[in-house]
Amino acid sequence: MSYFRPEIDAMAGYKPGEQPQAGKFIKLNTNENPYPASISVATAVASRLEQGLARYPDPVGQSFRVRAAEVLGVEPDWILCGNGSDDILTILTRSFVGPGQWLRLPTPSYVLYKTLAKIQGAESEEVAFNKDWTLPETFGIGGPNLRLAYLPNPNSPSGTQVSKDQIRKLADSLPCPLVIDEAYADFAEDNCIDLVKENEKIMVARTLSKSYALAGLRFGFLIAQPQMIDQMMKVKDSYNCDSLSIAAATAAIDDQAWVQANRLKVIATRQRMTLQMREMGFDVPDSAANFVWATYPGRNLKAVYEFLKQNKVLVRYMEYPNWDEGIRISVGTDDQTDACLSLIRMALDQQGN
Amino acid sequence: MSYFRPEIDAMAGYKPGEQPQAGKFIKLNTNENPYPASISVATAVASRLEQGLARYPDPVGQSFRVRAAEVLGVEPDWILCGNGSDDILTILTRSFVGPGQWLRLPTPSYVLYKTLAKIQGAESEEVAFNKDWTLPETFGIGGPNLRLAYLPNPNSPSGTQVSKDQIRKLADSLPCPLVIDEAYADFAEDNCIDLVKENEKIMVARTLSKSYALAGLRFGFLIAQPQMIDQMMKVKDSYNCDSLSIAAATAAIDDQAWVQANRLKVIATRQRMTLQMREMGFDVPDSAANFVWATYPGRNLKAVYEFLKQNKVLVRYMEYPNWDEGIRISVGTDDQTDACLSLIRMALDQQGN
Repeated sequence: MSYFRPEIDAMAGYKPGEQPQAGKFIKLNTNENPYPASISVATAVASRLEQGLARYPDPVGQSFRVRAAEVLGVEPDWILCGNGSDDILTILTRSFVGPGQWLRLPTPSYVLYKTLAKIQGAESEEVAFNKDWTLPETFGIGGPNLRLAYLPNPNSPSGTQVSKDQIRKLADSLPCPLVIDEAYADFAEDNCIDLVKENEKIMVARTLSKSYALAGLRFGFLIAQPQMIDQMMKVKDSYNCDSLSIAAATAAIDDQAWVQANRLKVIATRQRMTLQMREMGFDVPDSAANFVWATYPGRNLKAVYEFLKQNKVLVRYMEYPNWDEGIRISVGTDDQTDACLSLIRMALDQQGN
Repeated sequence: MSYFRPEIDAMAGYKPGEQPQAGKFIKLNTNENPYPASISVATAVASRLEQGLARYPDPVGQSFRVRAAEVLGVEPDWILCGNGSDDILTILTRSFVGPGQWLRLPTPSYVLYKTLAKIQGAESEEVAFNKDWTLPETFGIGGPNLRLAYLPNPNSPSGTQVSKDQIRKLADSLPCPLVIDEAYADFAEDNCIDLVKENEKIMVARTLSKSYALAGLRFGFLIAQPQMIDQMMKVKDSYNCDSLSIAAATAAIDDQAWVQANRLKVIATRQRMTLQMREMGFDVPDSAANFVWATYPGRNLKAVYEFLKQNKVLVRYMEYPNWDEGIRISVGTDDQTDACLSLIRMALDQQGN
């Protein structure tokens, strides 16, 4: 017999991307930033460490909220700090979606939302993107017991964006809050933060994992109207962010010059990678993120993935029902990207024409 | 209208103890350790920082599990790492207790368990300690839909312990898992880790916040049989512990000499404080934790608390229905403890005899 909730027994559990802890891999499979974080992060951690860790941290991470609010043009009480944006997504799901209720997400997209629904005993409804990665208007149509919608923007694996105009309309028509997961928005030309001010139903989730090169730190945050943040404060663990990560995150968001410089480097490499892969014959949608999504009807991309892995380059191979298989490749340094592109050419050559 | 789940709207939210971020307080209200952590913690963080934080952390914190398993005499797959023991308690509650089901806890005790039940839409049932802080046998009696029981041991606010023999019997008679919350067990003479090996229903939660002087780090863990840990892995956030805290926690648990030396200092001060408070007329049960619980029928302890606070000493004033009011005082350094005791004497003198 099992003592666990039946929902938990039935779950397979979310499988994060491969994280080899040993060996010399070029790791382009989980959209980490290939460059080291701002040096002010290490300085801030060292400085905070000198004060000792015997005391509980600030429960709301006020130093980060103040600095992030300045950068984003909101007030500090519009910001909720989380132990990675996974923590933010967990808090959101637990706040809005009860057992038997519905959560909406697009597909192909980030599957963690479904896992979070399952843990709640809730149902999830996937709305398929159109083949050109535009989002059908049906994403905004209400349904009985629909309590929350997640829209990653830019999306993964496609790297594509839904326009702000469409998001505004979706939020107006939906009967529930709409969370825009902007994990990759710093690599895009636009974001939805100003929409949060127009409509309490629109909330924006961010992470320092990608555009701040701090996946190892676990720090994410939500931007929402204060009456929404207040309620979610009740759901989060009291001290969900630790003293070192609050200090590090505050220093990181304070160094916007680093973010801008890093962004330009990543975008330049992304453009180059996109062009070269298209020249090889791949279909690559324009990406607004730090990765590209590549399909190639008629080619065996699983074999390309395996060949790369044998040669110590990890990318993400993905298959979705009713969609082509594809590979998602994170933007690395120029050297890493060139190594990856050369291996892809070799793999295709092996397959012949 | 509210978009939130009705359970969330109805909640007051858990209120952590006061955490003044400014001013010179002697802080004896949240059971933090008055001594700095092992210096190996800072060394480990600095060393980990040099490797950068751009990559995701090890999802299971294997380095900590391996070292903790050696210290505790179990295998690494018996250990689940958490972002503080709050994260562990959250994972446990979400794993076992669904809406409308029941969770059992003793009272007076740690109220967070009730908050976690509320977030789940679950019910909680409090079983009152006897006046001498022994636990009635009714704590072990089954009930319809009873899915989880929490027993802090040593308990807060009392500092008292339930015997291992009684815990073994409770677990045998309960129809559900029994979590022994051993946040303070390093300050006691005994603990329940060997009971975990006898019965999969017994699980032990630990934290580095108290006995390792690392409340600011947020690191806790669960010791349970591997088939239990496996299921809870599905419920936790994928990367719930960050790279710095895994490195710090591994170094901390590796320095058992520090833990033993710290423990002896805290226990010596606790004994002295207990005796002096009894001499002043307080009722103080023998504490197995790093705090003492003091009641004094006929005296105004709220006034004592206020007087201490005016004089920059923070302790915890607590009132429970059907119980005397009391103050819970964390064990500080000898100087902090002496300052606190002097002020308590002055406050009592002001109240007259």
